Amino acid sequence: MMLTEALVREALADVPYPGLRSDIVKLGLVRSIAVHNDRVHVSLTLSTEREDVPGLLRDAITARLAQAGAVRTEIQLLTPERKPVERDPWARQGRLPGARRIVAVGAGKGGVGKSTVAVNLALALQESGLKVGLLDADIYGPSVPVLLGLEDGAARARMTDDKQIVPLEAHGLSVVSFGFFLGAESPAVWRGPMVGKAVTQFSRGVAWPDLDVLVVDLPPGTGDVPLSLAQSVVVDGAVVVTTPQRLASLEAAKAIEMFRTLEVPLIGVVENMSHATCACGRRSHPFGRGGGEALGRTSNVSLLGQLPFEEEVVSDGDGGVPSMLRAPRSELAVAMRAIAATVREVLQLDGSAVGAAAAGGCG
Amino acid sequence: MMLTEALVREALADVPYPGLRSDIVKLGLVRSIAVHNDRVHVSLTLSTEREDVPGLLRDAITARLAQAGAVRTEIQLLTPERKPVERDPWARQGRLPGARRIVAVGAGKGGVGKSTVAVNLALALQESGLKVGLLDADIYGPSVPVLLGLEDGAARARMTDDKQIVPLEAHGLSVVSFGFFLGAESPAVWRGPMVGKAVTQFSRGVAWPDLDVLVVDLPPGTGDVPLSLAQSVVVDGAVVVTTPQRLASLEAAKAIEMFRTLEVPLIGVVENMSHATCACGRRSHPFGRGGGEALGRTSNVSLLGQLPFEEEVVSDGDGGVPSMLRAPRSELAVAMRAIAATVREVLQLDGSAVGAAAAGGCG
Repeated sequence: MMLTEALVREALADVPYPGLRSDIVKLGLVRSIAVHNDRVHVSLTLSTEREDVPGLLRDAITARLAQAGAVRTEIQLLTPERKPVERDPWARQGRLPGARRIVAVGAGKGGVGKSTVAVNLALALQESGLKVGLLDADIYGPSVPVLLGLEDGAARARMTDDKQIVPLEAHGLSVVSFGFFLGAESPAVWRGPMVGKAVTQFSRGVAWPDLDVLVVDLPPGTGDVPLSLAQSVVVDGAVVVTTPQRLASLEAAKAIEMFRTLEVPLIGVVENMSHATCACGRRSHPFGRGGGEALGRTSNVSLLGQLPFEEEVVSDGDGGVPSMLRAPRSELAVAMRAIAATVREVLQLDGSAVGAAAAGGCG
Repeated sequence: MMLTEALVREALADVPYPGLRSDIVKLGLVRSIAVHNDRVHVSLTLSTEREDVPGLLRDAITARLAQAGAVRTEIQLLTPERKPVERDPWARQGRLPGARRIVAVGAGKGGVGKSTVAVNLALALQESGLKVGLLDADIYGPSVPVLLGLEDGAARARMTDDKQIVPLEAHGLSVVSFGFFLGAESPAVWRGPMVGKAVTQFSRGVAWPDLDVLVVDLPPGTGDVPLSLAQSVVVDGAVVVTTPQRLASLEAAKAIEMFRTLEVPLIGVVENMSHATCACGRRSHPFGRGGGEALGRTSNVSLLGQLPFEEEVVSDGDGGVPSMLRAPRSELAVAMRAIAATVREVLQLDGSAVGAAAAGGCG
């Protein structure tokens, strides 16, 4: 069979990115393909700090294309120029209408408190005077309706005449959650191949008010859904949540690699459930210790903060009033404000560029 | 357009099961379809304890078929006869070669300790004299390689000549994990539509030795993967893991409904991370309290046990020697033995029917 560009692209779609569950085509790494009879030239953009990745990819691509009939394969690996965050927030208007900056909160593993961090981060950013939206894109188990007391969201959610989702308001935040659309009356059936498309529509089809920043609560992991999401909106920065346990930080490292591969700037890691304090004053480390620091070191990202593991954080979440509001002087709230300050700084959300309301702040 | 059985089936595939992310066709609920011109007769099997489900399904099906052109739709809801667990274990041989009983461990939400429960349950069952296998089918984040010290599993895993996966051994258990096949060298790319097929191959294509019981660690949630898995092997019983927090038990209720819909007998609920004990002796409930009991009550299943939240359980997991072995007198090990005794009883794994080694036991 004659090799064609289409056949080569198809073959490349069988090459997984080392350590992730996605292939290099889906990840958007293939920059160009040229075919001259049985010789193939492929160029890829690589954004990784892992030294083993280029070699593994070269070997896997060469083997797969040989199998497809290529006699000679040349592979060119390009390093993308890191794009600095644009200084004029209005220049980005075309990307996601209404939101000047987008920060994604991701995790490698479920149950590490990703949604709790996303919700409290959104509130901490709002507290500093920004107009903030929250997109709960966790299709596997949307938690935001419970965490923000929007359990009636499915009944209240509505669309504009031109089929845009209208956000609900909770504690001053503009909120949209997959949970509003997964109820018993859901018109959408999430069949496998449809997921990618649904996710894109969901993330782009919202009538956001003018926002300084949109916080996106991504699903955990590095599968199709987080990938489609991270690709369907241009994300200005990512925060990865982990617990101190090794099992969680191993998975978080994969999420960091996913963001790198997608060229999403990494703001840093938040270590959640770092320590608990008994009424007797004793500190314990129920999920072990050191996972966040070790992850920061091995993956070369900043450790933004270590959040305490408090019974009240869980009950605040179950009750719909996040700790940031219910206990603004709690250890969690103080730590979260510091994390929000870093996020604002990295995303250049301080100063006059943002809405007039941003004058105050505590950064 | 003329209505045909195929068109009706296609339309029914747009009807989600209330509260789950799967449709009624994929769930295997559609028993028969008959079409006479523009009149349609549909019969469904329903296994649910939720009173709202029949009405919601009737309405959704009628609306969808009207849209497809049906003038009149008759819907017949059948209640399946509960099949008692067969008394002769050998009668089931044809289903999954080698395993006499299969117990699935599921969860609604990630991070509740599902894999920790699966691993320790497998060891507790083994301790009572059974030959036990463990299938880690959590494609989203397989934890078993770390929990059982099989991190070199990817390098060691091999296939028989007829392409069957050969289980590895850890602490006496026969173990296969998706984690063995998701590494950098993975030949498989998990593209959306392929997942269902891969999952079936994975779960059926293992050369298990003769096992009394196979414990399957399912992925969390009620999406495509847990569904395909639960459908590809006939499961004799399911255990659902939750934490006490409301957010987790809400998701666990959906997993219970999924097992009911699939006619998998529910053995019960395990509440993990129920309470912590400080060195000062004080007991705390970091994830709140009562979620497991409330879930048992509202979903009408037994609460099999409440497991403590101990720092050592996490470090044992990170270290590859589960608490069941490292600390056989710990609160977790004692509670786990009681849970295993119930599982054995429900699955009729006590007595002479099972392997000769089963003489001891503590049930």
